[in-house]
Amino acid sequence: MKDQYQIAVLPGDGIGREVMAACEHVLQAVEKRVGIRLGLQWLPAGAQHYVDTGDALPQSTLKACEAADAILFGAMGLPHVRGADGTEIIPQLDLRMHFDLYAGVRPIRTFAGLPTPLSHPRAQAIDLVLVRENTEGLFYARGRGDVRGDEEVFDTMRITRKGTSRICEFAFGLAERRARRLGRQGHVTNVDKANVFASMAFFRKVFEEVAARHAGVGSDSAYVDAMALNLVLKPWNYDVLVTENMFGDILSDLIAALVGGMGMAPSGDIGDRVGLFQPAHGTAPDIAGQGKANPTAMILSAAMMLDWLAGRSGDARLGDAAALIERSVEQVFASGGVRPMEFGGAHGTREITEAVTGALAEAM
Amino acid sequence: MKDQYQIAVLPGDGIGREVMAACEHVLQAVEKRVGIRLGLQWLPAGAQHYVDTGDALPQSTLKACEAADAILFGAMGLPHVRGADGTEIIPQLDLRMHFDLYAGVRPIRTFAGLPTPLSHPRAQAIDLVLVRENTEGLFYARGRGDVRGDEEVFDTMRITRKGTSRICEFAFGLAERRARRLGRQGHVTNVDKANVFASMAFFRKVFEEVAARHAGVGSDSAYVDAMALNLVLKPWNYDVLVTENMFGDILSDLIAALVGGMGMAPSGDIGDRVGLFQPAHGTAPDIAGQGKANPTAMILSAAMMLDWLAGRSGDARLGDAAALIERSVEQVFASGGVRPMEFGGAHGTREITEAVTGALAEAM
Ligand SMILES: CC(C)[C@H](C(=O)O)[C@@H](O)C(=O)O
Ligand SMILES: CC(C)[C@H](C(=O)O)[C@@H](O)C(=O)O
Repeated sequence: MKDQYQIAVLPGDGIGREVMAACEHVLQAVEKRVGIRLGLQWLPAGAQHYVDTGDALPQSTLKACEAADAILFGAMGLPHVRGADGTEIIPQLDLRMHFDLYAGVRPIRTFAGLPTPLSHPRAQAIDLVLVRENTEGLFYARGRGDVRGDEEVFDTMRITRKGTSRICEFAFGLAERRARRLGRQGHVTNVDKANVFASMAFFRKVFEEVAARHAGVGSDSAYVDAMALNLVLKPWNYDVLVTENMFGDILSDLIAALVGGMGMAPSGDIGDRVGLFQPAHGTAPDIAGQGKANPTAMILSAAMMLDWLAGRSGDARLGDAAALIERSVEQVFASGGVRPMEFGGAHGTREITEAVTGALAEAM
Repeated sequence: MKDQYQIAVLPGDGIGREVMAACEHVLQAVEKRVGIRLGLQWLPAGAQHYVDTGDALPQSTLKACEAADAILFGAMGLPHVRGADGTEIIPQLDLRMHFDLYAGVRPIRTFAGLPTPLSHPRAQAIDLVLVRENTEGLFYARGRGDVRGDEEVFDTMRITRKGTSRICEFAFGLAERRARRLGRQGHVTNVDKANVFASMAFFRKVFEEVAARHAGVGSDSAYVDAMALNLVLKPWNYDVLVTENMFGDILSDLIAALVGGMGMAPSGDIGDRVGLFQPAHGTAPDIAGQGKANPTAMILSAAMMLDWLAGRSGDARLGDAAALIERSVEQVFASGGVRPMEFGGAHGTREITEAVTGALAEAM
């Protein structure tokens, strides 16, 4: 329990800056309500900063992140802005490696009042979390590609016992907390391709060892292809999923689509020392600066951050703050008065933000 | 143009045998209608055959496949039946390598009369083909896993110019044929992860070279994660997709879900010498032997086979046969009288098969 929690804020590029400003308003409103103090420090980083300075992620920004209690991240990257080696400017991945943010936590849920792309009535009650291993798997290959002339390229996937064990432990811990909150048994589904790859068979083996240590939580394994199908046909059957980095990248976008897209999908990249929270969407340069961006994913990411900080600090006010934001967002959409543009509505960043801060101010 | 076309038939395990028997009925009906002769030779292979003989894919079966004009494949694999090294019995992958069946062709379309899991009205008109590279990519790692004690395992993804170039050529050729048939411009979307992996950047580079040789076809590239989202939110926007082996495995199941699941999804594994055609579903041991299996994917796979044979042989009767099957299946579901069990209906293998052969017999 601290007097003030230090939040390193990396708004980044494109709509990252707009949704971060919206999020800041919401955090100010919640500070007043629950009596916490958050010190938000805006820091430079991203593709535009690379254009301006030649550095996408300055040392000073990294230092400030190291000193902070948590990191809030907007979105980074701009089309046509590429590094010296021709690859995109994606400091996200550098931050994951630098801070060993091994758990990519990607929750999705439906909100009453917002349409889902699925016609099944149970699609109104989707509520699941995908836990993506964030530091190895196929992403181990990043920067290590073995390019042989203009003829062939090899990339290597790496699965370690340590990396798999800790991500599975994380998933079971999360399932236990969710089970307590939702008052039912938790369940973790491991998603792999153990029928074809030795690395994936190893992932499954370690998963099963970890599962045996969490007998109170149900568990099973599925192949990633079958899961891509099942997540469309019956996503309401799942609770917590855990999977390799690349599979997690694909499936987390898939499940975001089930609730209407990236505008509603928050995420956390969590390590043992610090956590970084960001909307799942990108910088959307096509709509940047027009006030059209849906800030909900960013706002929900801030709620995830507060919830995570509550768990670490034992400061119950932070948990209240997280719940208050979540409830206010629920209420705004449930009322039917506010609908983001990607859902065919007419409401942009400002209307949604004001509705959420309004609901926050009035909430019991 | 031949007197008789030789078809090697590998029914396999579980419902593979039932749907193959259904498919044989349909092929007999179509033979009469268009005056072709198909010599169907049932051959042993699969997990049960492995249990019985120690060999999942006997040499005699491979020889017969080599001599055939095309291969029809049911489904193979049974739970708890594993090879000496603990992996599943999946001769599919061996056949792809043995015959160099480099193009995994996975078309999906909605059928009038059958509900789709998507609520958008345009979901009634999904019609796209995913072309999966079938012989390299991450699947190069199969059987090559580098297992280091009980601590870490490496698997290698391989992308070659030759492999990428031929699969992209295949995709553009397919888009050109579809464009002629549908009377509109064709479009190929390459799906990769070029922002992170050197191998995928190479895949994109080769794709763009091939695209430049097919100026009449539109083309673009997308990241696999974004595509997982877009395929749920707006699948009607796509025509032909081309992608790496593992991505193709995942996305082809995803798109099968969009039209109600594997029971409706045919596929072809096509090489320069021979083509193998199989339903996208597995052996479904839980419903095997009960007459519940939906034979549609198998029947549509046979139609794909005939269409492919027509292209190779120049025998127009085969093209007529393919179109006749497709139209009959359309008609059966459009009538509303027949609905497979996975769509909440009460009709099993026999009812669906009889309805299709009935429609075939009456078709103009
Ligand atoms: C920006 C990109 C490199 C990143 C990833 O692939 O991990 C993104 O898609 C994500 O899911 O966080
Ligand atoms: C059976 C399995 C090995 C196979 C694959 O992964 O390719 C299947 O999922 C497919 O899509 O054909």
